[in-house]
Amino acid sequence: MNSPRYGADALTSFATALLDRAGMENDKSKVVAEILVEGALLGHDTHGLQLLAPYLADIEKGELATHGQPRVIADLPAAVAWDGKRLPGTWLTATAVDLACERAKTHGTCTVTIARGHHIACLAAYLKRATDQGMVVMIISSAPENHSVAPFGGRSGAITPNPIAAGWPTEGDPVMIDVSMSITTNGMVARMSKEGRRQPGQWLIDADGNPTDDPAVVTQDPPGWLLPVGGIEYGHKGYALGLLMETLTQGLGGHGRADPIEGWTGEVFVQVLNPALFGGSEPFLRQTTWLADACRAVPPRPGVERVRLPGETGLRRREKQLREGIELYASIMPALSSWADKFGVALPQSIA
Amino acid sequence: MNSPRYGADALTSFATALLDRAGMENDKSKVVAEILVEGALLGHDTHGLQLLAPYLADIEKGELATHGQPRVIADLPAAVAWDGKRLPGTWLTATAVDLACERAKTHGTCTVTIARGHHIACLAAYLKRATDQGMVVMIISSAPENHSVAPFGGRSGAITPNPIAAGWPTEGDPVMIDVSMSITTNGMVARMSKEGRRQPGQWLIDADGNPTDDPAVVTQDPPGWLLPVGGIEYGHKGYALGLLMETLTQGLGGHGRADPIEGWTGEVFVQVLNPALFGGSEPFLRQTTWLADACRAVPPRPGVERVRLPGETGLRRREKQLREGIELYASIMPALSSWADKFGVALPQSIA
Repeated sequence: MNSPRYGADALTSFATALLDRAGMENDKSKVVAEILVEGALLGHDTHGLQLLAPYLADIEKGELATHGQPRVIADLPAAVAWDGKRLPGTWLTATAVDLACERAKTHGTCTVTIARGHHIACLAAYLKRATDQGMVVMIISSAPENHSVAPFGGRSGAITPNPIAAGWPTEGDPVMIDVSMSITTNGMVARMSKEGRRQPGQWLIDADGNPTDDPAVVTQDPPGWLLPVGGIEYGHKGYALGLLMETLTQGLGGHGRADPIEGWTGEVFVQVLNPALFGGSEPFLRQTTWLADACRAVPPRPGVERVRLPGETGLRRREKQLREGIELYASIMPALSSWADKFGVALPQSIA
Repeated sequence: MNSPRYGADALTSFATALLDRAGMENDKSKVVAEILVEGALLGHDTHGLQLLAPYLADIEKGELATHGQPRVIADLPAAVAWDGKRLPGTWLTATAVDLACERAKTHGTCTVTIARGHHIACLAAYLKRATDQGMVVMIISSAPENHSVAPFGGRSGAITPNPIAAGWPTEGDPVMIDVSMSITTNGMVARMSKEGRRQPGQWLIDADGNPTDDPAVVTQDPPGWLLPVGGIEYGHKGYALGLLMETLTQGLGGHGRADPIEGWTGEVFVQVLNPALFGGSEPFLRQTTWLADACRAVPPRPGVERVRLPGETGLRRREKQLREGIELYASIMPALSSWADKFGVALPQSIA
């Protein structure tokens, strides 16, 4: 049985309307909707439209601000720091990426930190707007209210999965990476735990610190924890990189775990680098294209179809879903229909 | 039996004298020696004084330039690109870190790419000079002449271990990370292979793409390869991050695998971020100190003494070796004594 499919534009209009009716300024509603739909297009179903219902709930609770602008803490040509004042993290991050691209055209690079923004959804959803302009972009996010990941050698949590996404152009498709510094993610653990499934490897520890593939340990009392990339074998690597991500986001932004918890929070680091103002655009594309071709040409291991570039699968899915409609995870539209009822917004028509 | 120990100053003078006699300009000899000794102090024995003999050999072969300055390709306040003209990578990198710190004091951040430099030794050896000034520093290096690491799903190599080092201050010791995007490193594989030892896990693949713990596969014909962080289970993470490191170094610098191989090469990305000109120094230190304390307070897993911060062991070893002398891996001084004979430089006195 196929899941229902929806046109990207219809979903964007629907999400915008729900956010508008929930009280959000329309310039923000549009960007939040666009980023959630972009996440869905790329196939990140735990970080696409699935997030809209909890965002609407946070607006109702007063934990997601709907009006205003970030407070500018620092503003140098290549170094900007904002207090996000609990505004939508998706809108803040998209705005920061656009600003950093603009600044990088003149200054070669620009870094923007966003403290105290709300959740930023799928990090990969912001990459194309920068790579389409020939830029290298990095986006890092951490969540100070969460400490689901154990430091290497520890048996309770201290940090978050701390994802980094990055994109850069080649002469063909851009390369787009999006990886967390924990082996698995909170979203994946919640979903697999609910479905009674096991992780593919010993990616967690139980409360005693023993490695396990059972995602249900995170909801037990006392709870288990996620392991950093490298696991119990060489998790000093994921732990080290996770601490770097916390430092670039919460440290540089100046807000985080050392402060009172304010709810669902994204502390964000956005950086754009302009190849034209370093070694040059042509040499850049020559290197990135050469390497992408070299990786694709590597013969696959037994059982693997072929070697792919990061982002390749997502970009193909994006094209297909733009053409044929977005397949939504079965639980998403039911969760949104009560909000649609409440706000008197018509549900989008599914594609037959 | 204890290995011989040497005073840090005696080793620095010895290394400087050897490089001077080999024809290197003294301002460069001093920095190369200082960085190699700093690597040894931190305990990176594959990336400390062990490198001096091969550096001297490369000078003799004309593959390591001894005189001159990098060619400036681009120079904006926060974005600098150099052609390193095969000058010592250690000297180029230390110079770039110092320049980036100086620029970041005014501009909040500065990024320097170095193309076509020679090898840069231990990345962790450059961190303290930036963290001592209150800065966040990142150093990434890749080697286009090497492709020992297989892309995820592949059964031959395409990229290098691509290490990233980063450091940042806390109210106590700085945190200093230094991790490669492959599970193990070329240096470690070479050493363990020579000693007939196995890796602690399935960190490589043989020529058929089967996982193995035998480092000797890399010298077989056809050869085996190193696996990216995550191995065959979730090596898409190490592969993605490795590609990012190649892009920030070879891509942004504009020189790399797409060009003719020139010998032992470090393509380098140096970035400094100044917390004072983002969210502020005090908020930065509050976050980084809070998190360091939180990690140290996590109870250890069974069999683990305590949770450490990255860099902690190296900094303790540095203090001890500054006090008691540097313990050199047994093979290092014999390899240097023939160079000392040749150049008429007296061997340093070991500490009894």
